[in-house]
Amino acid sequence: MIDSSQPDLNRRTEFTARYFVESSAPVAKVADVIAGEQSSGTFLALPGETDELKERARARVTDVRALAPVMEASLASAYVARRETPQLFHRGEIEIAFPVDNVGPNLPTLLSTIAGNLFELGEVTGLRLLDLDMPPDYAAAFPGPRFGIAGTRDAAGVHGRPLIGTIIKPSIGLLPEQTAELVDQLCAADIDFIKDDELLADPSYARFEARLAAVMPVLRGHAERLGRMPMYAINISGSIDDMLRRHDAVLAAGGNCVMVCVNWVGFAGVAHLRQHSELPIHGHRNGWGAFTRCPQLGFDFRAYQKLWRLAGVDQLHVNGIRGKFWEPDASVIASARACLAPFASVQPVMPVFSSGQWAGQAPDLYASLNSVDLMHLAGGGIIGHPQGIAAGVASMREAWQASVEGIALQDYARTRPALRAALEHFQAL
Amino acid sequence: MIDSSQPDLNRRTEFTARYFVESSAPVAKVADVIAGEQSSGTFLALPGETDELKERARARVTDVRALAPVMEASLASAYVARRETPQLFHRGEIEIAFPVDNVGPNLPTLLSTIAGNLFELGEVTGLRLLDLDMPPDYAAAFPGPRFGIAGTRDAAGVHGRPLIGTIIKPSIGLLPEQTAELVDQLCAADIDFIKDDELLADPSYARFEARLAAVMPVLRGHAERLGRMPMYAINISGSIDDMLRRHDAVLAAGGNCVMVCVNWVGFAGVAHLRQHSELPIHGHRNGWGAFTRCPQLGFDFRAYQKLWRLAGVDQLHVNGIRGKFWEPDASVIASARACLAPFASVQPVMPVFSSGQWAGQAPDLYASLNSVDLMHLAGGGIIGHPQGIAAGVASMREAWQASVEGIALQDYARTRPALRAALEHFQAL
Repeated sequence: MIDSSQPDLNRRTEFTARYFVESSAPVAKVADVIAGEQSSGTFLALPGETDELKERARARVTDVRALAPVMEASLASAYVARRETPQLFHRGEIEIAFPVDNVGPNLPTLLSTIAGNLFELGEVTGLRLLDLDMPPDYAAAFPGPRFGIAGTRDAAGVHGRPLIGTIIKPSIGLLPEQTAELVDQLCAADIDFIKDDELLADPSYARFEARLAAVMPVLRGHAERLGRMPMYAINISGSIDDMLRRHDAVLAAGGNCVMVCVNWVGFAGVAHLRQHSELPIHGHRNGWGAFTRCPQLGFDFRAYQKLWRLAGVDQLHVNGIRGKFWEPDASVIASARACLAPFASVQPVMPVFSSGQWAGQAPDLYASLNSVDLMHLAGGGIIGHPQGIAAGVASMREAWQASVEGIALQDYARTRPALRAALEHFQAL
Repeated sequence: MIDSSQPDLNRRTEFTARYFVESSAPVAKVADVIAGEQSSGTFLALPGETDELKERARARVTDVRALAPVMEASLASAYVARRETPQLFHRGEIEIAFPVDNVGPNLPTLLSTIAGNLFELGEVTGLRLLDLDMPPDYAAAFPGPRFGIAGTRDAAGVHGRPLIGTIIKPSIGLLPEQTAELVDQLCAADIDFIKDDELLADPSYARFEARLAAVMPVLRGHAERLGRMPMYAINISGSIDDMLRRHDAVLAAGGNCVMVCVNWVGFAGVAHLRQHSELPIHGHRNGWGAFTRCPQLGFDFRAYQKLWRLAGVDQLHVNGIRGKFWEPDASVIASARACLAPFASVQPVMPVFSSGQWAGQAPDLYASLNSVDLMHLAGGGIIGHPQGIAAGVASMREAWQASVEGIALQDYARTRPALRAALEHFQAL
């Protein structure tokens, strides 16, 4: 006789999702509701939910930790309001284990399971996906990064230091020849990495093909001089057919990276590109703010980056410390650490620091991460350097050398005019 | 000489996005910041942002309406905290017009433009995409629904009344032959529509192909009897290749609908399916709660449904009134109205009411919508009817007949035992 409340674990493998929950119901109870709703149960007793079916398909609650309750609901629920006026709302962290057999290596269904209707349950006044874990052999059935950090470094020809990069600005509006001119200046400054803005894909006045045709000869020219081609993450976001065609065009032209806006291309599209791609994929997460800025809703980056690692991006944005975005520095650092941390059998992705960056953030980044496996992108910090673009790039590289060698930037800058000028100019801003 | 602050509108067409904003900065100022960041500007003055470029690419603020300010920020911003301790946070609604030429018929780039980094701007302590509008000829360049309401009705063979439907339960765990058995019972009850649960796609114990092979002969058998095939929205969510293969298998087997989990397949994937599809697409929006439950963040359904209409779904979920989810009834009704309302040249989609539904909601739905162009899905309300599944379907259909004829359910039920039993049973719950 099978104990229906506890499936026989020897007979199935599971993946787990961890949540913050807030509810008018006690945490253990709402955990049961979620486990039921997201597997074989529902709000009514079902005649078809036999012991045998439960053993096969029912999710189970594997951890419940209560947190201090609150007096007011974080998120309104008309369902709760129709039934009661709760004196308090319970809070906690819970973990739920789902049978791998329910889902298989299917990204959209994995998301529907761990991040689907549970956000809308009436009892729930707060729900956030904190983390995700899975057995290595299950993780290995997803695409995963093809290049990762090592492959990105090989394609860029940059080893042993961060990739110093920038973004084409103005974000949108340049004609193809203007873009090529800017790329030429950036390459002449020995930059490691350039990316398109996420707004720029295929405007009618600067079609993708025209930009590629204008930019690639410039990159190839500098590659000959540098012995490496500066990595250009050209934004191929669009329809599935357009993305594959653009990828092939970049590859044929000798390019070394493609960029996609992951949230809006979506999981099926990014994974499809990954299966096809022979180039590292630069994952831009614009829109991420909508998924994460309410602390009692949505996604923690810890879980989010694992999902995009499964889909197969090689590089992923994490904002910048002391940047122009809302995010606290500790959160930015935690995101970068998550990208670099082991996850099942899936290789790490390269964290991309961007937004309000210049040489001055290097010491804190290095001290926090103890790693140079990252991209450090500066717009104004490079293009706005008082001595020009080449000095901007040099100042970033010098700041990282100083950081790795444990020398204060002020000291290192004494004999390095580019870094000195950066410190004088940007620290005053 | 061109006035750089006001592009020459005679020379470009635009689409507009409407937002709720909250900011430490005055609303008009943050509107300018957003318009800049989401087009050709950035936080520094850029040498390349010439008048000519602005005229081509710069977004412009077309409406600013102040709302009452608040004393506390809805969403934390470390950027604000580093700079000031604002006495109040401004709130308002703004509209921004973007040049169509910047984006073209590119769904991911449209999203990056209207729903990208702006959610993360440091000045912003609240931002929600409320609405979207565009010229008909621009909208026509996106896929759009191929079938819409009329095509859905034709495929289901149901006209002049709502499609009464249900969801296969338990959501997940049934074997293919068990699913077929339940479908047989539902079809025997003359149901119009059946859907898979969003959790169910291709579990190892009930592979997609096996389920299709088990279910389709049952549906074909009943189609012969009914003169119409009950519409079965079989969940094909998965990789691009799997979705296309599954679509083709459904089509070859004589099926009449496919279902996808839109948020997790993503815009590129759904639009790709739409281009390929010869069957109506049932759009399941699980995960939507994460996008919408914080009132100062994310998306209003008004904008969201337009985006999925552009991508080409034919049917879209809107929850149910007095359901088991968090959403207020007025919001559910507004969502359904949005699906049915005109939007540029894009045809309406069929709203799908689901979650805690039974016959009793029909009068309010009809009174609110004055339309029968909808799907009304009941799980317990059909399968849990005290007289069985056929009476459950009959009770729903009778409730809609009464509603359209303007007769109170209690009166109509006097000569209709199925409806009477539903009222007695479910009203007491």
